[in-house]
Amino acid sequence: MINGERLLQHLEDLSQIGRNEATGGVNRFSFTSEEKQAIELVMTYMEEAGMVVTIDAIGNLIGTYGEGNETIMLGSHIDTVPEGGKYDGALGVLAAIEVVHTMHAQQLIPSKKIQVVAFKDEEGTRFDFGLVGSRAMAGLLTEGQLQFTDKNGISIEEAMKAFQLSPYPFEQPPRDDIKAYLEMHIEQGKVLENEGLPVGVVTGIAAPVWLEITVTGVSEHAGATPMPIRQDALTAASEMILAIEQLLNNTTGSVATVGKLTVSPNGTNVIPGKVTFTIDLRDIDESKINVLEATILQQLQQIATRRNVMLSSKVLQRVKPAKTDAVLQQQLATSIEKQGIQPYFLVSGAGHDAMNIAEIAPIAMLFVRSKDGISHNPLEYSSAEDIVIATAIFYDTVVELSK
Amino acid sequence: MINGERLLQHLEDLSQIGRNEATGGVNRFSFTSEEKQAIELVMTYMEEAGMVVTIDAIGNLIGTYGEGNETIMLGSHIDTVPEGGKYDGALGVLAAIEVVHTMHAQQLIPSKKIQVVAFKDEEGTRFDFGLVGSRAMAGLLTEGQLQFTDKNGISIEEAMKAFQLSPYPFEQPPRDDIKAYLEMHIEQGKVLENEGLPVGVVTGIAAPVWLEITVTGVSEHAGATPMPIRQDALTAASEMILAIEQLLNNTTGSVATVGKLTVSPNGTNVIPGKVTFTIDLRDIDESKINVLEATILQQLQQIATRRNVMLSSKVLQRVKPAKTDAVLQQQLATSIEKQGIQPYFLVSGAGHDAMNIAEIAPIAMLFVRSKDGISHNPLEYSSAEDIVIATAIFYDTVVELSK
Repeated sequence: MINGERLLQHLEDLSQIGRNEATGGVNRFSFTSEEKQAIELVMTYMEEAGMVVTIDAIGNLIGTYGEGNETIMLGSHIDTVPEGGKYDGALGVLAAIEVVHTMHAQQLIPSKKIQVVAFKDEEGTRFDFGLVGSRAMAGLLTEGQLQFTDKNGISIEEAMKAFQLSPYPFEQPPRDDIKAYLEMHIEQGKVLENEGLPVGVVTGIAAPVWLEITVTGVSEHAGATPMPIRQDALTAASEMILAIEQLLNNTTGSVATVGKLTVSPNGTNVIPGKVTFTIDLRDIDESKINVLEATILQQLQQIATRRNVMLSSKVLQRVKPAKTDAVLQQQLATSIEKQGIQPYFLVSGAGHDAMNIAEIAPIAMLFVRSKDGISHNPLEYSSAEDIVIATAIFYDTVVELSK
Repeated sequence: MINGERLLQHLEDLSQIGRNEATGGVNRFSFTSEEKQAIELVMTYMEEAGMVVTIDAIGNLIGTYGEGNETIMLGSHIDTVPEGGKYDGALGVLAAIEVVHTMHAQQLIPSKKIQVVAFKDEEGTRFDFGLVGSRAMAGLLTEGQLQFTDKNGISIEEAMKAFQLSPYPFEQPPRDDIKAYLEMHIEQGKVLENEGLPVGVVTGIAAPVWLEITVTGVSEHAGATPMPIRQDALTAASEMILAIEQLLNNTTGSVATVGKLTVSPNGTNVIPGKVTFTIDLRDIDESKINVLEATILQQLQQIATRRNVMLSSKVLQRVKPAKTDAVLQQQLATSIEKQGIQPYFLVSGAGHDAMNIAEIAPIAMLFVRSKDGISHNPLEYSSAEDIVIATAIFYDTVVELSK
């Protein structure tokens, strides 16, 4: 039903905007001329799909199809990370437009208004602060956040003004008309690839707790200090890293990563006196994260005590995870089965605009297989076949919900 | 017998040369005006002790007492690391002078010539290349090494010339007259402090093998990659570091240290794709080092294979360890017992000029307790009591050997 060729052409054409010819990377950041060009292109796609196009107070691009007080919203984003790929965000917006285009071509009149949204600044590249459009829509944006600046000292507020947007109406209540929010997105992981499946239904969006751990031992001469009297911060940290890994290996669904680690003084013949490392801990269940966090800190303290080193920890960031709606999940699963594919449920480890919309509406997400799990990179790739099947599934779900 | 007050005064006065008033650190590097001043001061001490002073071809300062074809050599160095302490090197030279001064005052005529040597550039601070004077004396210096340069591009050869030294006579054979070489040095570790002993007899000088290990896994999104499919270079490296520690905990006398470690890309939400770390492995027994090195590499490879990451290793440095002479060790032990102290035998983890002289003569070393094991630091400290006892022991040994 859907026009795969048109969708793939749209993906290709949009990826030319902000494209770095040398690397193949795509660079489209919020409130730039590249973003403006992209908005204008996507606007024409929306209009061709039969939608009425508006831009809301924060700058979200919204195409509306049909009428009614209740809304089925389909969204994602068209901004990118530096040197990003063609699919992250763009696929979700363009597939949603294709869904509406197909409905329009079929002269299907939905019982509820359907809106396709390209959210403002999901990636947070320019202002080191992302999910801006969905944050605003969910009533989560604060006045202080609009004062965040880019590397040239230009604030979000100033960038909005330069884009002819009015001062942001913080007094306006968050939207309460959205009865379902659906987002299609590339997986950015290898789970579906490993399972040999083109799509999966997201059960929740894991949110990270970021901890910073500092282990302080005693820095001494590597030659002159026998093993038994050492207070080596790095061997202690190594034992901690393995304890975290083992705990998470025995915990389904959650992940923890020690991604950043620095040793001091970091000399070949000096026993490390201090090691600082981060822990990125994620699950879709906040209470599970809390239990894991407490267990990790307790185990780390035990290791520190036994090894006679000092331990300190601080929270760098704590984001709220979001669960997806059971009914919407089920609808996606039913649409997947119609394509003869086994429905598969998985967690989103990365954050998405859907996380914010979850505050004001039931949400669901459909993931599309990513080659080698690569994203945020010119090598990001999902096959034409997978994209077409995923969009057909998405279409079926939207049609069912709007009956 | 020995004059403790004089020795401590000499230590104090020498430490004023190159002293940084702000930090208390001592800075005396080879072929600098500070070193020249130090040489001139130590020269006067040697002359006051009844010695004839010469400077050899590489710039070693040598005081000779008595006559004969055979030599008992007492040595150490008077150069320092950047912001060094008062005792490392200086104590060995000044205590040796005090030993001779006391013999001279007692009108003791040794059966063999006694020489006190302040070796040129032990620390290697200026040219990133140390043990220069002892290397030359042992016939180990090469022409290429004299071309090593300091940060201003001045080579050792040029620095020698500026110090009025003649071109180095590489054709001259190494010295063969040294029948015993004795060096007194601060321990630079906490073994004697932990044993509650002022001195210890060194059984050998451990030399390091330095390895660099690179672990290559796959860098992926910390949220989107479930634990079981990760190829995390840092958890693999952590397991390797613990395996090394455990192996060495079960091996008496040897030590291994992972002192330097870097993670790539080192991002909080990115699974580490590459970790590089160093191993500093030491023992006084070369064959034991070889076995440990092979065992470590084998265990690391097993961990890498099991975790599906790549391992590569390279040797950064391989220095030959030196054993000390059993007869000289026994003489030091006897002199220690005369002071009512239990002789204690320990390994030197740090390198010393004695290591080179071991190539041409029997060597022995007497270690003096270091407070908190600190060295290469203004906080370096050995107590006046320990220094005086150690020098009395050293005196007794020299007198016995020169009978």
